[in-house]
Parts: sequence; structure tokens; C-alpha cells
Amino acid sequence: MRILLITSAVLLLASVVVAETQHELNLMPMPASIQAGIGQLQIDRSFSVAIAGSKDATLARGVDRFVVELSRQTGIPLQARPSDSTKPTLLLQALRGSERVQKLGEDESYELVVDQSGAKLTAPNSLGIIHGLQTFLQLVETTPTGFAVPAVTIKDQPRFPWRGLLIDVARHFIPLDVLKRNLDGMAAVKMNVLHWHLYDDQGFRVESKRFPKLQGGGSDGLYYTQAEIRDFVAYAHDRGIRVIPEFEMPGHSRSLFAGYPELASGPGPYKVEPGGADAVLDPTREVTYKFIDKFIEEMATLFPDAYFHIGGDEVNGHEWDANPKIQAFIHAHGMKNNADLQAFFNQRLQKILTKHHKIMMGWDEVLHPDLPKTVVVQSWRGQQSLATAAQQGYSGLISFGFYLDLMWPAARHYAVDPMIGETASLNPAEKSRILGGEACMWSEWVTPENIDSRIWPRNAAIAERLWSSPEVQDPGSMYTRLGKLSWRLEWLGLTHRSSMTPALHRLSGTDDIAALHTLAEVVEPMKDYARISSLKGTWDFRAPLNRLVDIARPESDQARRFRDSVQAYVGSGYQDRAAEVQIRALLTAWRDNNAILHPVLEQSFLLQELAPLSENLSSLGVAGLVALDSLAKSAPPSDSWRTEQLALVERAKTPKADLLLMIAAPVQQLIEASAGQVQKP
Amino acid sequence: MRILLITSAVLLLASVVVAETQHELNLMPMPASIQAGIGQLQIDRSFSVAIAGSKDATLARGVDRFVVELSRQTGIPLQARPSDSTKPTLLLQALRGSERVQKLGEDESYELVVDQSGAKLTAPNSLGIIHGLQTFLQLVETTPTGFAVPAVTIKDQPRFPWRGLLIDVARHFIPLDVLKRNLDGMAAVKMNVLHWHLYDDQGFRVESKRFPKLQGGGSDGLYYTQAEIRDFVAYAHDRGIRVIPEFEMPGHSRSLFAGYPELASGPGPYKVEPGGADAVLDPTREVTYKFIDKFIEEMATLFPDAYFHIGGDEVNGHEWDANPKIQAFIHAHGMKNNADLQAFFNQRLQKILTKHHKIMMGWDEVLHPDLPKTVVVQSWRGQQSLATAAQQGYSGLISFGFYLDLMWPAARHYAVDPMIGETASLNPAEKSRILGGEACMWSEWVTPENIDSRIWPRNAAIAERLWSSPEVQDPGSMYTRLGKLSWRLEWLGLTHRSSMTPALHRLSGTDDIAALHTLAEVVEPMKDYARISSLKGTWDFRAPLNRLVDIARPESDQARRFRDSVQAYVGSGYQDRAAEVQIRALLTAWRDNNAILHPVLEQSFLLQELAPLSENLSSLGVAGLVALDSLAKSAPPSDSWRTEQLALVERAKTPKADLLLMIAAPVQQLIEASAGQVQKP
Repeated sequence: MRILLITSAVLLLASVVVAETQHELNLMPMPASIQAGIGQLQIDRSFSVAIAGSKDATLARGVDRFVVELSRQTGIPLQARPSDSTKPTLLLQALRGSERVQKLGEDESYELVVDQSGAKLTAPNSLGIIHGLQTFLQLVETTPTGFAVPAVTIKDQPRFPWRGLLIDVARHFIPLDVLKRNLDGMAAVKMNVLHWHLYDDQGFRVESKRFPKLQGGGSDGLYYTQAEIRDFVAYAHDRGIRVIPEFEMPGHSRSLFAGYPELASGPGPYKVEPGGADAVLDPTREVTYKFIDKFIEEMATLFPDAYFHIGGDEVNGHEWDANPKIQAFIHAHGMKNNADLQAFFNQRLQKILTKHHKIMMGWDEVLHPDLPKTVVVQSWRGQQSLATAAQQGYSGLISFGFYLDLMWPAARHYAVDPMIGETASLNPAEKSRILGGEACMWSEWVTPENIDSRIWPRNAAIAERLWSSPEVQDPGSMYTRLGKLSWRLEWLGLTHRSSMTPALHRLSGTDDIAALHTLAEVVEPMKDYARISSLKGTWDFRAPLNRLVDIARPESDQARRFRDSVQAYVGSGYQDRAAEVQIRALLTAWRDNNAILHPVLEQSFLLQELAPLSENLSSLGVAGLVALDSLAKSAPPSDSWRTEQLALVERAKTPKADLLLMIAAPVQQLIEASAGQVQKP
Repeated sequence: MRILLITSAVLLLASVVVAETQHELNLMPMPASIQAGIGQLQIDRSFSVAIAGSKDATLARGVDRFVVELSRQTGIPLQARPSDSTKPTLLLQALRGSERVQKLGEDESYELVVDQSGAKLTAPNSLGIIHGLQTFLQLVETTPTGFAVPAVTIKDQPRFPWRGLLIDVARHFIPLDVLKRNLDGMAAVKMNVLHWHLYDDQGFRVESKRFPKLQGGGSDGLYYTQAEIRDFVAYAHDRGIRVIPEFEMPGHSRSLFAGYPELASGPGPYKVEPGGADAVLDPTREVTYKFIDKFIEEMATLFPDAYFHIGGDEVNGHEWDANPKIQAFIHAHGMKNNADLQAFFNQRLQKILTKHHKIMMGWDEVLHPDLPKTVVVQSWRGQQSLATAAQQGYSGLISFGFYLDLMWPAARHYAVDPMIGETASLNPAEKSRILGGEACMWSEWVTPENIDSRIWPRNAAIAERLWSSPEVQDPGSMYTRLGKLSWRLEWLGLTHRSSMTPALHRLSGTDDIAALHTLAEVVEPMKDYARISSLKGTWDFRAPLNRLVDIARPESDQARRFRDSVQAYVGSGYQDRAAEVQIRALLTAWRDNNAILHPVLEQSFLLQELAPLSENLSSLGVAGLVALDSLAKSAPPSDSWRTEQLALVERAKTPKADLLLMIAAPVQQLIEASAGQVQKP
């Protein structure tokens, strides 16, 4: 037993070291193993990088990018050309180059050793080097003596081989420059799959040369040419990112029928316009499969990845029900219902994909015993659906809990794990079928202007969940590291932080946006599907998205920090003076804000809806200050005051202008704490 | 006399209307004539634009851009394709298209009529329409009832035909995407010449196919390919901007000799490295002229504009003095000195330019009676130099007073006029030779990261000076309109405002940059040539530009507004309560700032130099508050306090870390005002 005890002690010690290092190093995702060294490596004008091992074009371009990013991060103009010096600052050594087409499950590991005299990054292939360079960039710190990387040994590899981000470019078109900077962001947090949702009822976004009416009828001119797509796929490949196209079949396909109504199950006519979601392919006619065969043949060359996503979700069956020929087909083939018809369709589709050397992926609904086990299921429904698939022998990945459009805080996504709930009790073979997960950026409320702020920084928390050990789960550490990562992501051109200022100027039409900014910083868009549910009319994808709800960040840092301060203050028995000072400063600013903001709101049609929010913010400021004074003086307020203020809090919690005032709950905590004090004798 | 009186009254009335409209409309540059109408034109989803008259490709692309910009400005997704509707929101009518190569003095006028039912923009050519569309964009306001353009009739044309911006890409290379967004900014303020300073001692930035060692030896890999240049020139042409290349001869040419040392007057060797400015072409050898002939022939096709700038400034003559053959040549040809040699060179050069159908431009120094009158002189020396040239029959333009790198406030540039001082007394024929002026962005201290903030928004004040009537000269109105324009320019991708935040994060390495921002907002870089003069060693164009001085804005809005508040307060006899509240809030924030900032400064090698500035800011805050209290209570402070505080002010005015603390002077005003009070009896 003694040996075991010693080992445990060492492990304990090691984990303490790791914990301390984790606190120090602003890495995201957290690497598999970190061992702190002594001292630091200076980064200055003499910085050089050399490649010792295999050097393919992907690696060469990766190093060029790395030098540009390091220059941007430090403001030191470094030479883009790798040095041939015998003693470079950073030596790179890969055993092999990269695959022409990146494969699922490729080795992504790397090892980075930094000491005071230099750094060495080794990996089995270029992919590992690309990841390790991102780790190196994150390690560069501003110190009292210069830019520097702390001495450290990092051994790293991902927990899951599939770490993706879905971007929906159908409901709102997203231009390639915006997508490219998001690929840069993904590479920074070592995500390796872009799931490109290229078409849906609201738009068909790919140029087809065989079926030009697809983009002609279905895109309003907003689509990617084949040359652009090739360039984009190469751009992603350079960053270690696979591109998986998704073409929804048989549902979500109205934009397809704008050009080819003969493929639809309904009588049409079909236009790309706001409205229902009934449009669905006719799976009973051979012309449909001929079209699919030719179309997939064309797309298969455009998208080289082995996987091909066919959607397959949310077929409501209305058009099938309404079409007597389709119903006759169902009966004639001994099917019980529409689900059987969709399974029949999927089997045909799967054979076509196989013919074109593609592996089929689909959402939960495609799961059917008749499909081969190679099919990959993406679960928007949850771990149970994923567990069932794994038990049946299917590979799968999770997106349930990773929907960025639901406006959840990062910590909530972070708490989701592919291996909790039903999947946790799978056997090892079944578990190995859980490939990872994908964050999903559905674009009902997304534009090129605000998409960065919907994806970042929260997506980095999901990236860490999929890369790092499941033991890495402290939200406090996550938020600390996310905070730093967030502004560093701006070096890549991402606008998740900077986009708010010009948008507030537009909203107000004025130069001075300070008071509006104060309000904008403490609100968040409504959660889940509340916004679309509360719509009076039909959701219109062509409507302007230029209200504060389209600009406000999904998670308010300000409100989160205020909540933390209130908890610290209450938790300290009202003794934490630093917290009290912070709370008081914020409450005072909020109290005084409406007087400044109110006249501004009246001057803009886009701001008028914010008047109740602004009033509530100030009222909460007043209430919070009374509560704080009461706590500081140990003088409980009257019951009637408390009742009145809690009613105010409840009103303030009601969404207004589709926004939530995120300081209502912590102010409530202050009010309740003040009322809960024992009356002075 | 009665008729005259009535006319004057009408004129007076008209000018009052104009003055009021000017106050209301945020236009920059101010148009030649504005007549306000009644009501406003709504801009909403139904907005459409149609082209009634001539429609060339330039105009078509201009309209596409306009629609994109209007969409960005309003957040309304508008269709890029012009509508064919019979009653569009905006009707465009040009009589002619645009010149393939834009010409000096082309008609740039337009007329814009807006009423509640629609707008009509007419012009003699596409160029006028392009300008008018920018005016329309500036007119779009956020109002209580929607986005709208006020009803108005504008007739507009420029005062000067040459309204340029020089950008030096030699001392620091500026990538094309950065230059392009600056072209967009120029188009927004109707500037029409980009003067591209393409080469200097520190770099040769153009690909020559005939002389590849030019960019090979002289560029460090940072140069523009010919394909890129063609694309860039077309991009400028689309925006009504002529591109004038400048190739410095015979001086400022070290980078040329890195590849072709045989053309130099000295023995070399020549490398692109920090150091002296002696390198100069050998004007005594035929090989020089053969090179120039071939080189200009190549460049003449690349840059289609009729004008070609050959620099010609600051030849110090050291290499000529030191070369016995050159001295012998001077004597053999009966020349008196190096100036005669340069004139000889310029005559030869001018003939070569004529052969290639180019009109020669140069700086003041090229002026010589032997040169033909077609030569255009650009004056960095001042109005006298320009007046002399005009009297001799030469055309000229002014850059003296328009050097953006000198870090002057906008109002100081704004007060410069091509027609003041010596030029004001020229006769009409001579005056007509003053073509306009050029702002100059020399790039000793400029990088792709900070160049926007050096050019904008101040360049817009110069643009107005060159476009608008000389009577438009109120700095208050200018600053009001400049403030609005400044954030609107961000829609074009310019980063003059947004670049500060990521740079402050880099400086500090921390998330919370509020206190650093407070300091950064009230400092300005040293003026004129103080920074280069105070250098200990040689100026090194390869050194990092990542200190606060590289980030701080040339003109502090915060300090300017504080100064205005202090003046308003003092001017009101200390009765202006609103001003007092503003002054007190700022002084309090500054007083408290050092306590927060000091620990942050210690943690970064880039921030340590700011400690004295930060201390002075807080000390000035304390002093200012005492003075303010004293004024508010009519209780003069003691003489010894005053003496002490004024000494502090003097210390605070001394540059530190190459920065000036811009609130020192207004705090001084408060202190002096407080001391100047009559003692209470």
C-alpha cells in the first residue's frame, strides 16, 4: 500500500501544481498536461522561428500566419520569413506533413517545451504544430521586463476528435470574410470542424453549375461561387479545420423549389419568402433521386471531406399528407407513416452518397435500423438520443446544449458534456462512438454585423469542453481565461467586442453614447426561443435587425461581475468593503442613468422601446442603494418597502423590447438580504 | 438704392437660413449652397434607387456601394440591385459617364433635391453623382419616426480642383486593404487625389518587371505587385480619386541603390537600413537617364494619371560634394553649385516625362526658370513659395500646414488656407494657378495599425477647407460636424476610433483597461518634429511602434471638451452650473485614477514610462478641484498654494514618454482664475 500512497501524494502534488499553473497561464482550451518551469523566454525584435523536420506548404503558411499574429499581438514588426538560424527562438519539428484532405481522428497532438533560452514545438504532423503555435501565442504575456513566454512543458491532445461549429448561412447570408475570421477564431481555440449549413427554406447559398436555378431562384444573389468555396475550404484546411457541408433533405427545402418546383411534394408555387415550413422533396418520384445523384456528384468534388450532412430534421409531413399520390405510394409499399417514407428516402439517399464516396450524417430523425452503421447522427435532442444511437452501433455527436442562438451564458454551455446523463453509462465500445460535439449558430437573428458577438467568446467555452479533460470544469477559471481570450480574439479581426460602439451610434444618431452604453452593458437578449415565440406576425428573415436586442451581448459581463460582487458581499456577512465600493459605484451610476438617457431615447425611433428598461435600471439602482445602506448600517428596512421593491424587481425581470435586465436578480438578493437582517433591538 | 437694400435683406435672410441649416445638417465638407425644405424623406425597407440618365460601369458600381453603405448605416438590408420602379426613392440622372482616366479640373458638381416624396440627384457626369451620393448618405439621420433625410435643395461644387492626401508607404509599408479603406474615407469627404509616396530611403514599394532588383533589394518583401496597383487605381477611379505616384529623384533614394548601386553618386555599399539621407542619383552619367527613361516608361502605363510626381526635395548634396567626377562635371558645364546640377537633372527628367506623356510635379525645390510652365509645384514651405511659383506662371498646390504627422489639432489645419498670406494678394490669373492642396501623412511613426487614427478625423477638416467656401471657417461648427462624421467613417471599416481598445489591452496585458483608457484619453503625442528630435540614437524605421504615444490620438476630444467647459465656466463668471458639474466629474475621475492605474503600470514594460504622467494627471485633478471649490465658494486660495500649483502645472506641461498632458492648460486657467478673485472682505 505504501507505493500507492506515495503515488497518490505525487498525483496530489502534481494536481496542485497543475491547478496553480492553470491559474497562471491564460490558455484556452486547457492543455492535457502542463508542467511549469523556471523563468521565461523573452519575445523581442530578435525573435526567430525555424523548421527542423517535415515542412509542407500547410506548415509553411501556418508559420507565416503565426509570425503575423505574433507581430500583431506584440506590435513588434517581425519578419514573416522563417529564419534559418541554428539557434532560433522557436524550433518547430513535425515528423510528417498534413493530409491533403484532413481525416476524422487524425493525430492532433503536440508537445511544447519552453525554457529561458528557447522553445521547441514537436508534433507527429503539421496539424499538431498548427495547434501548438496557437498555444504558444496564448502564452505570450506582457510582463514588467518585456513580452515573454513562461518556461513550461506542455503535452497536449484533444479529448474528442470532432469539435465543430455549425454556421447557418441560409436564414441570413454571411459573407466569406466574416466566415474566414471566424475560422481564425476556431483555430485559436483548436476547433476542427466547420459545419456549413448552406441551405434552408430561406436561401440556397452555393453555386451549382449543373442546376443554376438553385442559386438563381433561391439566393437573392447572395451565394458563394464554386471558386470561392474552393478557396474557403483551402483556408480552413490550412487552419486544421474540416468543412462539412449540410444540404437539408427532404425538408427545410423551400428555396430549392423556387428554381425546381417539380421536385416538391406540394403544388407550389414556391418563393423564397417568409412563411411556413412545409416544403419537402417528393421521395416517391425517380426524378428526385436523379436530381440528388447529379447534385451530390457535383458537390462531392467541391467539398472533399469524407462526411456529408443531409439534415433530415423537422419534416412536418403536411405536404406528404396532402398529396394523394404520395399517400398511395406509402400504402403501396407497405409503409405505416411518413416516418417510414423518410426512412425509405434516407436509404436511397445513403446509397447515392456511398456511390460518391461520402459518409452520411444527419440529425436525430435520420436514425433508423435500416441505415448502415457508418451513418453519423448529430443530436439536437440530447444525450439520450445519442446514447441510443451509440448502443445501436452508430457514431454520433452532440449539439444539444451547444446552441449559441439560445443566448445562454458561457457557463451553461460549459456545464454540458457529451458524456453525462445517458451517455455516461455506456460501455467503452459505445462511448468510443461519441465523436464529440458541435456548437450551433442558427441565424434567425444573426447578421454579418452581429454574428461574431453571438459566437464569441462563448464558443471558446464549448471548444474547451470538447478539447480538454472533463475535470477542467471550474466556471471561475473558465471566465478568467475567457476574458483574456476574448480581447485577444480581436487581433484576428473578430468584432464581437468592437461592433457594439458603432451600432449604438446608429441607434441613437448621436456622438455621446455613454448612457446608452451603460444600459446596453446590463441587458441580454431573451433566452431560448422567447423572441420568435413572442412575435406578433410571421418571422421575416428580411426584416432589419437593428434594435438593441440585436446588439446587446448574449452574456453581460457587467451583470455577471455585479452578481459576483453581491454574492461576495453577502457571503462576507456585509464585511467585504471592496465589494461594497464596487456595488455602490455601479448602483449609483445606474440610478443616475435614466435622467441622462431618457431625452436621448425620445429622439430615436429605435430607442423609444427602451424607456421602461431605462426607468427600471434607475429604479433598481435606487432600491439597491437603499438596501446597501441598510446592510452597511445594519438597519433593516420596513416590510412595506421590501414588498414594494420586490414587486419592482419582478416587473424589472419581465422582458422588455425583447431584452432582459440582468441586474434585477442580484438587486433582489440585496433587498432580500437587507430585509432578512435581525431588527436592531 | 431701394432695390439694393431689398436684395441685401434677402441675402441676409438667405445667409441666416444657410447658417441655421448648416447647424442642423451634419455635412462635411459643407456644400456650396443649401436651401432647407419642409418635412423629411423616410428611409425604410421600401427604399429604392433608379438611374434615369447615362449609366456607365463606374456609376453602376457606385450605386451598388451606396446601397451597401446605406444598409450598413441603417441596419436595413437593402437590395444592391437598382430598382427599375417608375417612382424610386432616389432618382439619379447624369448627362454623361466618367472619363476613363479622370482629369484635373473635371466638372465635379451635382444638385440634390429632396422632398417628402423622393429625392433627385443630377450631375453633368458620374463623378458628380458619386459625390452627391456621399452627401445623401451624410443626410440620413436617426429620427423619432424612422431614418430620414430632411427636405433640402443642395447645389454643390468644389472650390479647388485638387484635393489630395499624400500617404507615405515607404518608411512604413501600408497594406492595400488599409489604403483602400482610406480611399473610402477620402471619397466620403470628396477628396479626389491620392498622392502615393511609393519610395524613399527606407523602401521601394512597387514591383518593376524591368528592374526587379528595385523591389528585390529595396523592399524587404513588402511591396505592391503591378496587378495589385492596377486594381488599386481602378478602385480609386471608381470613387472619383486620381492616383498620383511619387518617385523621389534624385534624393531620398537609398532603397533604389540597394539593387542598383551603379546609379548612385557615392561609393556605397547601400543597404536599406537606419541612417543618413545622403543617397542621391548621379546626374552626370547617361546610364542614370537610360534607367529613368525605361523605368518611367514602365510606370507610365501602370499609373494612367497625366501627372507624375518626382519628389525633388531635400537633396543635401553631400555625395555630390564628395565625388570628384561630379564636381568636375559641374565645373565643365559652367554650373555654380549643386542646385544648378539638380536643375540640370530636372530638365532632363522633365523631357523624359514629356516623352512618356506625363506632366511633372515636384516639391518647392524643383522650381527653376529653365523648367516649362506646365510643371506643378507642391509647396511644403508655405504660401510664399506658392505665390512665387504662381507669379512665374507655374501651377501649384499647398501642403504646408497640412502635415498630419505633426499631430496638430484639426482646428489648426482648418485655419490654413491656400489663399492666405502671400497668395491672397495674387492677381486673378495667378490665383487660378493655385490648384488646391494636399494633406500629408508621412509615415515615420505610422503603422498599418495606427495610420487611420493619424489621418482621421482630422483629414476631413482639410477636405472641407479645400472643397467648401472660404467663409466656412467656424471651428465650433467644424468640430460638431467632425464628431458625427468621425463615427460614421467607422462604417467604412476605418479604425481610427476602434483601434485604441485592443492596443491598450496589449500595452497592459489585462482585461480591465478603464484607468489606462482614462489616461490615454487626455494625452496627445508631442507636436511637430519633437519626437524625432528627442531621439537618443538614430531613428530606426524597423523599431516597434507599440508605446502609448503610438496609440494616443493626435487630438484629445476629452481635453478639448474639458477646455471648452472651463472656458464656459470662467466666461460665465462661475455661474454655469452644468459646466461646473462636468468639470468636477472629470477632475474627480482624474484625481482618483492614479491609485487604480499605478499597479497596472508596474506590471508592463510598455507602461512603466507613464508613471509620471499618471501622477501628474491625479495631481492636476486635486489642484483643479481645490480651484473649483474656491471659485464656487468665492474663497480665493493662498498665494503660496497658487505658486505651488502653477509650478506643478509647468512640470505637467513637459512631455513625458513623448506625450503631452492636455488638461494642464485648462487646469492652469482654473487655478489662475481662483487666485484672481477678489478676497472676501
